[in-house]
Amino acid sequence: MENKAAGKVITCRAAVARGPGLPLAIEEVQVDPPQGTEVRVRILFTSICHTDLSAWKGENEAERVYPRILGHEATGVIESVGEGVTCLKEGDHVVPIFHGECGECAYCLHPETNACEKFGIDPMRKTMPRDGSVRFWSKDRSEPIFHFLNTSTFSEYTVMESSCIVKIDRRFPLQKLCLVSCGVSTGVGAVWNTADVQAGQKVAIFGLGAVGLAVAAGARARGASQIIGVDINPNKFDKGKNMGITDFINSRQLQESVSEEIVRISGGGVDYSFECSGNLQALREAFLSTHNGWGLTVLLGVHVKPDTLPIHPMELFSGRRVEGCIFGGFKGKTQLPDFAVQCVKGAVDLDQFITHELPFEWINEALQLLVDGKSLRCVLSL
Amino acid sequence: MENKAAGKVITCRAAVARGPGLPLAIEEVQVDPPQGTEVRVRILFTSICHTDLSAWKGENEAERVYPRILGHEATGVIESVGEGVTCLKEGDHVVPIFHGECGECAYCLHPETNACEKFGIDPMRKTMPRDGSVRFWSKDRSEPIFHFLNTSTFSEYTVMESSCIVKIDRRFPLQKLCLVSCGVSTGVGAVWNTADVQAGQKVAIFGLGAVGLAVAAGARARGASQIIGVDINPNKFDKGKNMGITDFINSRQLQESVSEEIVRISGGGVDYSFECSGNLQALREAFLSTHNGWGLTVLLGVHVKPDTLPIHPMELFSGRRVEGCIFGGFKGKTQLPDFAVQCVKGAVDLDQFITHELPFEWINEALQLLVDGKSLRCVLSL
Repeated sequence: MENKAAGKVITCRAAVARGPGLPLAIEEVQVDPPQGTEVRVRILFTSICHTDLSAWKGENEAERVYPRILGHEATGVIESVGEGVTCLKEGDHVVPIFHGECGECAYCLHPETNACEKFGIDPMRKTMPRDGSVRFWSKDRSEPIFHFLNTSTFSEYTVMESSCIVKIDRRFPLQKLCLVSCGVSTGVGAVWNTADVQAGQKVAIFGLGAVGLAVAAGARARGASQIIGVDINPNKFDKGKNMGITDFINSRQLQESVSEEIVRISGGGVDYSFECSGNLQALREAFLSTHNGWGLTVLLGVHVKPDTLPIHPMELFSGRRVEGCIFGGFKGKTQLPDFAVQCVKGAVDLDQFITHELPFEWINEALQLLVDGKSLRCVLSL
Repeated sequence: MENKAAGKVITCRAAVARGPGLPLAIEEVQVDPPQGTEVRVRILFTSICHTDLSAWKGENEAERVYPRILGHEATGVIESVGEGVTCLKEGDHVVPIFHGECGECAYCLHPETNACEKFGIDPMRKTMPRDGSVRFWSKDRSEPIFHFLNTSTFSEYTVMESSCIVKIDRRFPLQKLCLVSCGVSTGVGAVWNTADVQAGQKVAIFGLGAVGLAVAAGARARGASQIIGVDINPNKFDKGKNMGITDFINSRQLQESVSEEIVRISGGGVDYSFECSGNLQALREAFLSTHNGWGLTVLLGVHVKPDTLPIHPMELFSGRRVEGCIFGGFKGKTQLPDFAVQCVKGAVDLDQFITHELPFEWINEALQLLVDGKSLRCVLSL
């Protein structure tokens, strides 16, 4: 069947951010055809992650870019491809990745990083990397609309670089798979790739949102013998139990420090701690909760304050280490297809993360659910 | 030949620290026989390291322990052993190690650390770990004299735990081998064990004292393609050239920052940087001089100020890492004998580090040479 829209502008609905914290406006927008190695994708499902919240609120000055189409967790189908695209074709089922992989730069060729010189995450970027222009316009074309994180999935159609698109098996459920687009991959990958947790090891998780719970699921899949969850919201604990957490700590109900409690119940400290809260004090407690000699703290949370690491240089002589981790250390194009297979096979139960399902028009309600800590992931159908 | 002193107190000469910065006093002291798993060693050569300087000056309150016998870089011969010692015997040629290895604790059994629960470095410890008492006394036995770093080698005889003693081949030159007791092992081991530098990789070294130059020697032995040395003393550069340094940066003579210069001349940043200066600003520059994505900064320098790491948590998302390293990551009892063999075979030229040789009585002059930056290592003969 011929695709009559290929090469032409598509008019469709999108949720447009027009100011810090203003409700997203469902508007008709124009979406230009893909150029060169770009593709245009019909988004079918999108969910919301804390990074979207932060940009929506405009928490950092640099994020206050409007009008803009946010969103980076999604699944969809390729509508059309630019003339330079060879790895994807119309009709392919795809997962967008905000942290792309060109496959050719020094980073992509290096075994120890999933950064990419061209298409890695860049919160400052608001246009297409190819030419610095936009593919989104207001319906009357009078106003450009900016991009977000290489993806902009809060739209029925979006344009992305093919390096930021992962093809998945057509038989896989797109509704669930949008979770591997960011949150679940970030948490599970931190365990499988960055920490490389082995059976019988012990972990602690600071912050039990979707990413923290994905860490738990990843650690359980690896056979961790103790998975300690730390949060200030006791409502997280029931959910956490289903994801593999064996011990809960409500940091507000302790006499001693969280790290002292973790060192006590783990018999000397955990092998790995995962900081998913974006809180500096939690970061220090996460560091101190690992075992002297070999403990590793993996940073996943976003720290917006200017304060530097609350760790003294000499404390690193204890042998404890701290590392940052983006997108779970996955090289997206190369490794995500297999990760999707593993999720579908049940290594990680994606259903556990989907607490709400709503139509796209309810996106502001979905944002609020996340703000209120009532949802892990709300999947929106477009 | 029977050892008539075994089991008895030995009276000998030692250099005793009696107050912060006071000249070490060459005194007659009494050295008790070794207990249990301890050994008594006739020290033949000792050199001086910056950690000795720091304790001598009493830079930290906790270090102000007097009277005390400092010193931890040395070689000697076992004079007698305690009744529980099986791994060493009278007459063995040995290298003391301040960072011991009991071989039995959780740390010693863990592949990723050279810490030891019982005999690892503890700057606060001033007595024998076995019973918390001393083996050194003033000549009239009226005054206990405290120990330092498990070793106290500024004495003709000293008592150590056998876990803090490495036996080496009798044919090896003891005068040179005292350098593997701390400084050279620390620098070379940071390259070989902690960073595991591979042929063709690039490194930067901040601070060109004996440890920094040992880093250079270790990197050259591994085939590093670029070895950048940073110091504020241009006199270090001639020496550095002989040790393998390919590029010198005098940080006081730059317009731009040191890290910008290193990123420029290395084409994007070095694979590994080594912080050997104990300066926090140098630490930050060392961090920024490594390549995004995979750079590792290894901390060797001692930071006495209370300031925490000058690194923002988000900067760790660049993929750069920072790790501390003690004693070059060597598990001393297990790995140092082979390292000594490699040094004797020429993988590292120990002669380059010995800038001065003096009799033991000249120990205060030797201290001053190090304070003034005029010596790398001065080997004292006892």
